[in-house]
Amino acid sequence: MEFNKVERDLLQAVADLHSIPQGAVNIRRDGEAVLRRSSPNIEIVGKTDRPGIDIIVKPGTVNESVHIPVILTRSGFKDVVYNTFIIGEGSDVLVVAGCGIHNAGQDVSRHDGIHEVIVKKGARMRYVEKHYGEGRPEAQRILNPNTVITVEEGAQAEMELVQIRGVDHTRRVTTAYIYDRGSLKIVEKLLTHRDQEAESTIEIHLVGTGGVAQVISRSVAQESSRQEFRAALIGKARSNGHVECDAIIMDRAQIRSVPELVAENAEAVLTHEAAIGRIAGEQLIKLMSLGLTEQEAVDAILSGFLR
Amino acid sequence: MEFNKVERDLLQAVADLHSIPQGAVNIRRDGEAVLRRSSPNIEIVGKTDRPGIDIIVKPGTVNESVHIPVILTRSGFKDVVYNTFIIGEGSDVLVVAGCGIHNAGQDVSRHDGIHEVIVKKGARMRYVEKHYGEGRPEAQRILNPNTVITVEEGAQAEMELVQIRGVDHTRRVTTAYIYDRGSLKIVEKLLTHRDQEAESTIEIHLVGTGGVAQVISRSVAQESSRQEFRAALIGKARSNGHVECDAIIMDRAQIRSVPELVAENAEAVLTHEAAIGRIAGEQLIKLMSLGLTEQEAVDAILSGFLR
Repeated sequence: MEFNKVERDLLQAVADLHSIPQGAVNIRRDGEAVLRRSSPNIEIVGKTDRPGIDIIVKPGTVNESVHIPVILTRSGFKDVVYNTFIIGEGSDVLVVAGCGIHNAGQDVSRHDGIHEVIVKKGARMRYVEKHYGEGRPEAQRILNPNTVITVEEGAQAEMELVQIRGVDHTRRVTTAYIYDRGSLKIVEKLLTHRDQEAESTIEIHLVGTGGVAQVISRSVAQESSRQEFRAALIGKARSNGHVECDAIIMDRAQIRSVPELVAENAEAVLTHEAAIGRIAGEQLIKLMSLGLTEQEAVDAILSGFLR
Repeated sequence: MEFNKVERDLLQAVADLHSIPQGAVNIRRDGEAVLRRSSPNIEIVGKTDRPGIDIIVKPGTVNESVHIPVILTRSGFKDVVYNTFIIGEGSDVLVVAGCGIHNAGQDVSRHDGIHEVIVKKGARMRYVEKHYGEGRPEAQRILNPNTVITVEEGAQAEMELVQIRGVDHTRRVTTAYIYDRGSLKIVEKLLTHRDQEAESTIEIHLVGTGGVAQVISRSVAQESSRQEFRAALIGKARSNGHVECDAIIMDRAQIRSVPELVAENAEAVLTHEAAIGRIAGEQLIKLMSLGLTEQEAVDAILSGFLR
């Protein structure tokens, strides 16, 4: 399978791919699987009823990874994909998803990724999903991820959801159900610029006894962009949940942050912290006194914040 | 003016009144002003178009107070009152409001207090409002305060809003507008028990440059009671806002906390912290090791938390 320069750059941006990775892989380009490879322990099967794949990790599979990046390079292409992940009992795997759009044309390019993730009893999963857009500034790039994750008894999941740059509209919805002693950590990082709009809704149901949830959101809104962040923790059992949202606002940007704590059980302990503010002046002055220009200092602070 | 024992107890609970206080006073009982007295600097005038009063504090009035408690003792009485407060430029006053309901009958007793407060340039106001209900447990007591406050240039306002006990339903709405260098601090304390319901919405618009807002909410939900707390900070200018919500949940109670930070200006700095949890076990054990019963230890912790 050959990829051109644009495609290779997108694959690198969203999945850190410099070459075809080891293990199970599925690369989707403009709505078609251009590369699909299962491994002995991780099976990738095309869905028969609708576009998308099932990723089935055998119980007990450890130290393996699966890469399933998506790229769109045809201007005006609208891609909808349904992926199902079954992370088998007692396994420990890394999932690298992500979507990159190169839109050099006139029309709206759009990808909707609808994901269902089931992390079975005692399994561990790390999931990384990066979103990126590039091309003509006037051409629209839209990315709408919708993920439902179930964390079974004693399972652990960690999700890193990143929107790097260049996505004009995004509506991100993540819904989670955590059962007995399950734990979920979601780290979301978002940068918007120009007149981009980003909306993210995370809803975590702490269903089982001893469940733990942590949400860390860091975002930067530049120029005339707008962000809206909603995170709800619903404690239905003896459980712990914490949400932390930090946002840097610049220029004429607007940010709305609406966390929600719902304790439906007196043994649920739910906490939240949020802050929206500009870059601290002292930090800028310090870096500039070390010889950086103002722009370099701002860039250094932002990349540290979103690292 | 004579008050019976029930009335005196209510006045003491909601306005700390042991006798008729000095200065301007308006005592409303079952929809009628039973005592109205202006002072040289604070005028109290009955509205002519609807029930209620205008409280007009002359510019420059300092170290004075006005007491305007409301009591309801007739079961089934529904009271609606519109009060307007004009706190004159450069003045510094204490306003003691509050409402107590004694309902010994069968019917729903209800008080809706619709307040408009204007704190003029450079003025300072401290406002204390306590709500309390008592009587037959089965008899309903409803209290719905609705307050709109404007804090003008350089003015300072501090509001302490307390629901002590015995209020079956409450829907509290507080809306504020803060202009240049104005500051507002709202402290809300709420206790619900039995199957009571409390809903509180605070919305603060930081309109002017250098405005400061602080909201501190502390609440305890016992037995089968339900609470919903919403606090929005809207930063429209260079300004600072902070919201802090702490709640103790017990028994079969439910609490929902939904803060909202909206930065519409890159110079707005908005922060929020929230926690919902049960009484810390160590605290209980420590107090019990000092000889308190479990119930006494719980009461001591709760009264410290709501002090």
